[in-house]
Amino acid sequence: MALRSFASQAYFVKPYKHTQLNKPVFSVPFSVLKCHAYPIKTSFPLEDVIESQQFNRDLLNGIFEVAQDMEAIERDASSPGSSMLKGYLMATLFYEPSTRTRLSFESAMKRLGGEVLTTENAREFSSAAKGETLEDTIRTVEGYSDIIVLRHFEGGAAKRAAATAKIPVINAGDGPGQHPTQALLDVYTIKREIGRLDGIKLGLVGDLANGRTVRSLAYLIAMYPDIKIYFVSPDVVKMKDDIKDYLTTSGVEWEESADLLEVASKCDVVYQTRIQKERFGERIDLYEAARGKYIVDTKVLNVMQKHAVVMHPLPRLDEITVEVDNDPRGAYFRQAKNGLYVRMALLKLLLLGW
Amino acid sequence: MALRSFASQAYFVKPYKHTQLNKPVFSVPFSVLKCHAYPIKTSFPLEDVIESQQFNRDLLNGIFEVAQDMEAIERDASSPGSSMLKGYLMATLFYEPSTRTRLSFESAMKRLGGEVLTTENAREFSSAAKGETLEDTIRTVEGYSDIIVLRHFEGGAAKRAAATAKIPVINAGDGPGQHPTQALLDVYTIKREIGRLDGIKLGLVGDLANGRTVRSLAYLIAMYPDIKIYFVSPDVVKMKDDIKDYLTTSGVEWEESADLLEVASKCDVVYQTRIQKERFGERIDLYEAARGKYIVDTKVLNVMQKHAVVMHPLPRLDEITVEVDNDPRGAYFRQAKNGLYVRMALLKLLLLGW
Amino acid sequence: MALRSFASQAYFVKPYKHTQLNKPVFSVPFSVLKCHAYPIKTSFPLEDVIESQQFNRDLLNGIFEVAQDMEAIERDASSPGSSMLKGYLMATLFYEPSTRTRLSFESAMKRLGGEVLTTENAREFSSAAKGETLEDTIRTVEGYSDIIVLRHFEGGAAKRAAATAKIPVINAGDGPGQHPTQALLDVYTIKREIGRLDGIKLGLVGDLANGRTVRSLAYLIAMYPDIKIYFVSPDVVKMKDDIKDYLTTSGVEWEESADLLEVASKCDVVYQTRIQKERFGERIDLYEAARGKYIVDTKVLNVMQKHAVVMHPLPRLDEITVEVDNDPRGAYFRQAKNGLYVRMALLKLLLLGW
Repeated sequence: MALRSFASQAYFVKPYKHTQLNKPVFSVPFSVLKCHAYPIKTSFPLEDVIESQQFNRDLLNGIFEVAQDMEAIERDASSPGSSMLKGYLMATLFYEPSTRTRLSFESAMKRLGGEVLTTENAREFSSAAKGETLEDTIRTVEGYSDIIVLRHFEGGAAKRAAATAKIPVINAGDGPGQHPTQALLDVYTIKREIGRLDGIKLGLVGDLANGRTVRSLAYLIAMYPDIKIYFVSPDVVKMKDDIKDYLTTSGVEWEESADLLEVASKCDVVYQTRIQKERFGERIDLYEAARGKYIVDTKVLNVMQKHAVVMHPLPRLDEITVEVDNDPRGAYFRQAKNGLYVRMALLKLLLLGW
Repeated sequence: MALRSFASQAYFVKPYKHTQLNKPVFSVPFSVLKCHAYPIKTSFPLEDVIESQQFNRDLLNGIFEVAQDMEAIERDASSPGSSMLKGYLMATLFYEPSTRTRLSFESAMKRLGGEVLTTENAREFSSAAKGETLEDTIRTVEGYSDIIVLRHFEGGAAKRAAATAKIPVINAGDGPGQHPTQALLDVYTIKREIGRLDGIKLGLVGDLANGRTVRSLAYLIAMYPDIKIYFVSPDVVKMKDDIKDYLTTSGVEWEESADLLEVASKCDVVYQTRIQKERFGERIDLYEAARGKYIVDTKVLNVMQKHAVVMHPLPRLDEITVEVDNDPRGAYFRQAKNGLYVRMALLKLLLLGW
Repeated sequence: MALRSFASQAYFVKPYKHTQLNKPVFSVPFSVLKCHAYPIKTSFPLEDVIESQQFNRDLLNGIFEVAQDMEAIERDASSPGSSMLKGYLMATLFYEPSTRTRLSFESAMKRLGGEVLTTENAREFSSAAKGETLEDTIRTVEGYSDIIVLRHFEGGAAKRAAATAKIPVINAGDGPGQHPTQALLDVYTIKREIGRLDGIKLGLVGDLANGRTVRSLAYLIAMYPDIKIYFVSPDVVKMKDDIKDYLTTSGVEWEESADLLEVASKCDVVYQTRIQKERFGERIDLYEAARGKYIVDTKVLNVMQKHAVVMHPLPRLDEITVEVDNDPRGAYFRQAKNGLYVRMALLKLLLLGW
């Protein structure tokens, strides 16, 4: 994962995109946007959502304000906001299945009155099997829809799709690459749960070597001041040097620790992740050792502060025990729900602007 | 299948459910509900539809009246009833494929103006493959939808899902367990075709040992007075003792017979079922013998009374010959259609109440 | 492929069909139909769209006028036309996956305000696996929807479905049989790109033996006067005699050529096709030789006339090089988009009439 500054991402800005959109911006319901800190008249600066590096603090804050508006819209199907995207068609083009992510995007589109075209198995079933390039598929699908949500098995696929498409593309995960909406919902959840992003103490636990989510989260949270990050992971899946170097360069304090209880007692957020069996190949012994090492259970809860929360990108196996579910500090299902609000916000912003 | 009384099902009533529903009951179209025998002001007593044992006669009658209203709504897309569920989102979470059942539910939701999130292959494709529990999946999906229709390969899955979910759950079949909406549509079809449920003479034919539908039908029809049931099946797939005992206890007359023609001449309803090859393993010889034994053909039709009907849960192989399709007494495709009306009624009742 | 005259297709006209439709024609938006050459008051003469032989010139012209109206409707989601099919439900019943075709139909239905029930894998997942006949499946699905779009692996399946269904059926490809909406969109594209259909010079290139699309296109274009067709193909996949004989009988001039450049310099339309590897079995050597023989690249573009276009049914491998994409004469993605308009027109015409 190359880490580049937001300013260098000019290639995502294709000014012709919106003018070629199928739909006129025929009824932008500005009324649903309450008084925002983020300037209203500015059009949304992104044409596509491809990687975490596209975002800066101001942009994140603006998106999060819209996401919070979405909570009210989702709760009230008779609100005008809930037909904001009426007449818009989203294509979910999934080259590998990811039911959770797909349903979250499709729910987001439908909660705003939009419609959806779905393909969950584009890799096996579509023309891809006959050798069609992703670019050709995108040029066809963009003729049938107004926005494309792409899940792909190859890193960089989303960027290629966005470079081709005349309509907005959202990256819903491209292989070992990026999954930016997951990163956004993680940061949004911290803000909603803790009430702020400045000065957060964050414990990243579990598989830090392979976890796309913890890497992206570390990248994004580094934009905020006075962050402290603790890495707690089995030796075989330690956080890699590129992120550590990036944090150091960005002025973020970090340390590694083998003591989950001590870390948990200090943190605002304990972000647990699943040890991914599929990464260990035949070394099941290493997997089993890594898997059982750091479990978030009532012992961990007991040392955590009252205001602190446990997060997890899900699915969860047994790295968080089910007792934690009943504690108000278990925030992972609220976190999944926040994915809905963040995706509603992005769909709104990419199709209608601020 | 344990048979318990309806009164003991208090665990399905979770009073907090409706108050936590995403949607306000913002436009209950009471006008579409004509003068009902069932008291209008009572809210629907079920939070979920999980098993046949939840229903009693009064409840069935109330549901059937709503189902009959649905016939008119389905025929007229400009009626106000047809946007009754506008703004509501149903998730069809299918851990094994069942295209017929899925399309029936999705059509029901859309005929009422609602929207659908679909996953047909949750077992293979979702986080279940990574070891996520059903409970965790439900907690995520309930954040994206207003009602969940669950098909699962494990008996008891629907009950577990309902115990977890804060939104209504409908069981669309859970393995060897229950498929209550099939049972309801069967009883509804008898009522619509014969004009009554009291005093029905019912012939259950074919695979009575493995057929979930005939077992549930026997259970439900036993609630009505003066029922007589004939079992006509090859020896290897005879009706099991639990249902026979239950019928006896409930005061229902039943007998076994090897003479389909004689039974057909007496019955109001001949309910034929498919001999399920998959139950016979390597004993193809037993399957072939059982399969050809009781066929509903013109000979059977010829002895049937004019008002009587042939039913079948479908899919049908050759246990009903195609000539029967053209006889008005062949009711199985009307029966499939009744599944739509019953599911429309249940969606309406669970989301909006009576 | 038997070629029969349109007049002989009376079996597609089932006058009872519309009267049994679920939906009343409750709001035919005639206003969206501008002044047409085709007589307005005539109801659409087809009950189903099954094969190219159902169409004659007048009918094609009428459909193409409606298709062109659809371009404006698709661009403006607030136009009344875009809710023309509100309340209608289309079932896409795909026995083999074809993501491109499916998404095109589903987009067409949704762009007109209609709703969709989808099954992409009917062969493997549905009751078909248990031995249910297509006819039985159709009788069930017609109870859940207002129009069926069928993709099947067997030639003749669509005709069987149409003979059974009381609602309209559209053939979205049935095995080696027909794919009539592809043929219509090809002819529509020639009309839109060149401005006329009379006197067209058409080069058919590539796999002419197995390509369903080129055979259907040859059949339809033969209805227009002064057509000249050039066949350019490797010897192993030459156009078959039945189409050649048909063209001769219809008074269409045709010739075979091995010189793509010379043909390209004369033609209005160069219609390239993919050499289908799956047709060559183990003879990979023959496939490789055939595949590389006739490539449309900048050399071909350079000899083509300014008004001429390159078409392709997609997916494309390397038989058209990517440089051609950037030339305005590369019309294949516009052609794919035209599929949307033609399908919108057919859905409108089958459900609402002219």
